[in-house]
Amino acid sequence: MALPSEMRGLLLVGHGYTRTPSAAALEAMEPYLRPGSIAVPEPGPTQALIKVSLASINPSDIAFIKGQYGQPRVKGRPAGFEGVGVVVATGDDAYARSLAGKRVGFATGVSNWGAWADYAVAEAASCIPLIDTVRDEDGAAMIVNPLTALAMFDIVKQEGEKAFVMTAGASQLCKLIIGLAKEAGFRPIVTVRRDEQIPLLKELGAAHVLNEKAADFEATLREVMKAEQPRIFLDAVTGPLASTIFNAMPKRARWIVYGRLDAEPTVIREPGQLIFQHKRVEGFWLAEWMRQFRDRLGPAVLEAQKRFSDGRWSTDVTAVVPLGEAMARLPAELAKPNGKVFIKP
Amino acid sequence: MALPSEMRGLLLVGHGYTRTPSAAALEAMEPYLRPGSIAVPEPGPTQALIKVSLASINPSDIAFIKGQYGQPRVKGRPAGFEGVGVVVATGDDAYARSLAGKRVGFATGVSNWGAWADYAVAEAASCIPLIDTVRDEDGAAMIVNPLTALAMFDIVKQEGEKAFVMTAGASQLCKLIIGLAKEAGFRPIVTVRRDEQIPLLKELGAAHVLNEKAADFEATLREVMKAEQPRIFLDAVTGPLASTIFNAMPKRARWIVYGRLDAEPTVIREPGQLIFQHKRVEGFWLAEWMRQFRDRLGPAVLEAQKRFSDGRWSTDVTAVVPLGEAMARLPAELAKPNGKVFIKP
Repeated sequence: MALPSEMRGLLLVGHGYTRTPSAAALEAMEPYLRPGSIAVPEPGPTQALIKVSLASINPSDIAFIKGQYGQPRVKGRPAGFEGVGVVVATGDDAYARSLAGKRVGFATGVSNWGAWADYAVAEAASCIPLIDTVRDEDGAAMIVNPLTALAMFDIVKQEGEKAFVMTAGASQLCKLIIGLAKEAGFRPIVTVRRDEQIPLLKELGAAHVLNEKAADFEATLREVMKAEQPRIFLDAVTGPLASTIFNAMPKRARWIVYGRLDAEPTVIREPGQLIFQHKRVEGFWLAEWMRQFRDRLGPAVLEAQKRFSDGRWSTDVTAVVPLGEAMARLPAELAKPNGKVFIKP
Repeated sequence: MALPSEMRGLLLVGHGYTRTPSAAALEAMEPYLRPGSIAVPEPGPTQALIKVSLASINPSDIAFIKGQYGQPRVKGRPAGFEGVGVVVATGDDAYARSLAGKRVGFATGVSNWGAWADYAVAEAASCIPLIDTVRDEDGAAMIVNPLTALAMFDIVKQEGEKAFVMTAGASQLCKLIIGLAKEAGFRPIVTVRRDEQIPLLKELGAAHVLNEKAADFEATLREVMKAEQPRIFLDAVTGPLASTIFNAMPKRARWIVYGRLDAEPTVIREPGQLIFQHKRVEGFWLAEWMRQFRDRLGPAVLEAQKRFSDGRWSTDVTAVVPLGEAMARLPAELAKPNGKVFIKP
């Protein structure tokens, strides 16, 4: 099959990083992306060119297009860290060539050629050949969230306390972690912003679901912290909510920031707790974890694929938006709760 | 020698902890201490009763009398964590009895019977028999600052980078650390609030001394951070100054809080740095360090005593205030820079 020379894509407007703080919501597309036509890229020796079937949208993509992710933007290149598709060309490397014609889940972090386009480039090592029983919606969300879930739940298990805390409890990522926790007999304490999310998350396996907007939130939080004594706090939000939670946590609590959904100032309310209660604040970044724990990537990827195949994990879909409608529809679709939004080239 | 039944002391007004934030300065004595007469305590089996010659005043004492230290106040008991004096009675324990009649530097943390009184009680294990060449002013400040200095400089050495950052650079504690750093070829970067402290600290061994009040402070800070690439930040201040420093530090920086001289909010200015730059925030508490590293206490204490004896370390004295004048004079004496204030019973 001959490849076209040009393709459509959502191209980055900005370059490098920005210093302007901004919340995680995508308020509009135009400041960050423009629809455009661009030459179909050629894969390097260790890379694969993928005809994209479905690309996912993660919170890290939004941070990236805004210039607030840990990797600089390249102006004019397509955005999009993750997707699913068929390998239509490869470099000369033997492993890359072995992927030819296969359906793969892929991540583009290293290649810098994003998935929100007709074709994407990924390192062969970041492509996962999919078994037939994995849906495209799961294959397109097979890497970023699943590996983050497995890696962060490892931190919880290593700490040993059964109870742990998560903000943004209704996110796809948190739902994956809640599933892992339920199986292992752990007790997730999660926060949400809507009462209707409470029964759903309890059903999945959350021990406590607290609505951060409830009038008695702080009182309930203190009670739950006292009863459950969680040590690990996996935080996607920061700002006042996270400050309040960390402040209420017991001795030796570890506040692990992995997202910044709230752009409000993040205050350590009682620095004395760092001194006298041995609490600490740190961060988690999947890219860093992958560099540190290369040998655990293979097993983690296999584990993720099994879980999606047998239905223990499943990706909730809010919308599948055609590439041509993305500029008009994405902000509104992303504002809806409870599921993931995909782009279909 | 018969002991009196009553003694004078500066007695705690408050009990337990307070939740009211407050700066480290001692604005007045009356809310926290009252002069009083109290029965001379009896030492427990493993304790020593010490006739106090000189008691020191550390920032941790001020935090303690305000109810903001990691140990609850006992209303009506004397305050004061550290001093020097002669052992006049002991419990039955063999090691305690071996101290009888000796001049010791002592810490009262565990006994809860403070040093700002005619007599104090300390665990025998927290008493250091002093060699004659150690002055009373050094003996009274032999434990809290010297052990903190040795323990925190150990953290710097373990991290490996020669450059490190300290706030409150003109404190006695920082001067001790600067001395250790100079000998070991490390490069302390310290902040002060007065230009006249700059030459003194450079003389002692600081590689850079930045006046936090200078108009070009932030620009200079960024330059120095870029050139020196420090990893460890030993922080006695918190608040906006510490936030600014941490924000300017390079990848993998560790902000280690051990004091709270500024009661202003402590903000993590860019939580993304925790995620993408692997920075973290933690605390240091000597009491916790002593529990964790019991086997290193003996050598550290010996090291401290040697350093004071041979003049490599020396305690700068601002004032020696008689116990009877303490209520009237302490706040003003403590407000003076550059040295330590002692109470003489």
